Amino acid sequence: MSCELCETLGGQLLWQDARARVVWVDDPLYPGFCRVIWSEHQREMTDLSPADRAHCMRIVFAVEAALRDHVKPDKINLASFGNMVSHVHWHVIPRFHDDPHFPQSIWGVQQRPVNDSSCSERSIPSMNTIAAALTQLLRVASHPK
Amino acid sequence: MSCELCETLGGQLLWQDARARVVWVDDPLYPGFCRVIWSEHQREMTDLSPADRAHCMRIVFAVEAALRDHVKPDKINLASFGNMVSHVHWHVIPRFHDDPHFPQSIWGVQQRPVNDSSCSERSIPSMNTIAAALTQLLRVASHPK
Repeated sequence: MSCELCETLGGQLLWQDARARVVWVDDPLYPGFCRVIWSEHQREMTDLSPADRAHCMRIVFAVEAALRDHVKPDKINLASFGNMVSHVHWHVIPRFHDDPHFPQSIWGVQQRPVNDSSCSERSIPSMNTIAAALTQLLRVASHPK
Repeated sequence: MSCELCETLGGQLLWQDARARVVWVDDPLYPGFCRVIWSEHQREMTDLSPADRAHCMRIVFAVEAALRDHVKPDKINLASFGNMVSHVHWHVIPRFHDDPHFPQSIWGVQQRPVNDSSCSERSIPSMNTIAAALTQLLRVASHPK
């Protein structure tokens, strides 16, 4: 069976190593939305070895840290579903109190018109800023003392 | 400000240690749905120390493993939002192809009537079975060699 995340990057590449990549989702409603995608086709986190799970989560938390530093959201949302594409991937989403779905998840019922949201007025850093932050954070995170 | 997860258990207790607890959500649509709740009031995973983050995720993955073993879902969904209760907690949800929301998240648009779903016909183990599995799994996971 074909798998979208085996066959495509799944977004614009921000960072990668031999085991995983981070991509920029480029969602106009959710600027800064990133995904962490495991390279190997695996369905569940517990299909990875404990060391690989830990590596994957270090990357997820580095993305969270980079987004908190540079996007300054009101909240970070983390999720790994795989109901449609059952290849391990994590959504890391900066959320704001006045974004279209808050306090619902972005997969829930929209709470306010997109035009009423100020998300387009926020100062969102470029992909390159987040990519540079990740490179710095993961250099440390991938090689703990 | 009051916090529901500081003031209440947030479900029926399955397992706990000094840092976190696992509760049984008892959602009739999603039997087996568990939450991992960090004891200390923290907003984001990156507000925890790296060691505490790793401990929290070992618990999340132990719950995933216990649910895979005993509920045998088609997919596990993991999520940490905190948009409504901004106290670190993880949803660990066994999903089935014919459950009410599949392949949407359980926070998305319902896909089929509850009565059409066979979820009530599945053989779902008792809380005690999952509690015993977690005790076994976390005895190992919390004290890695």
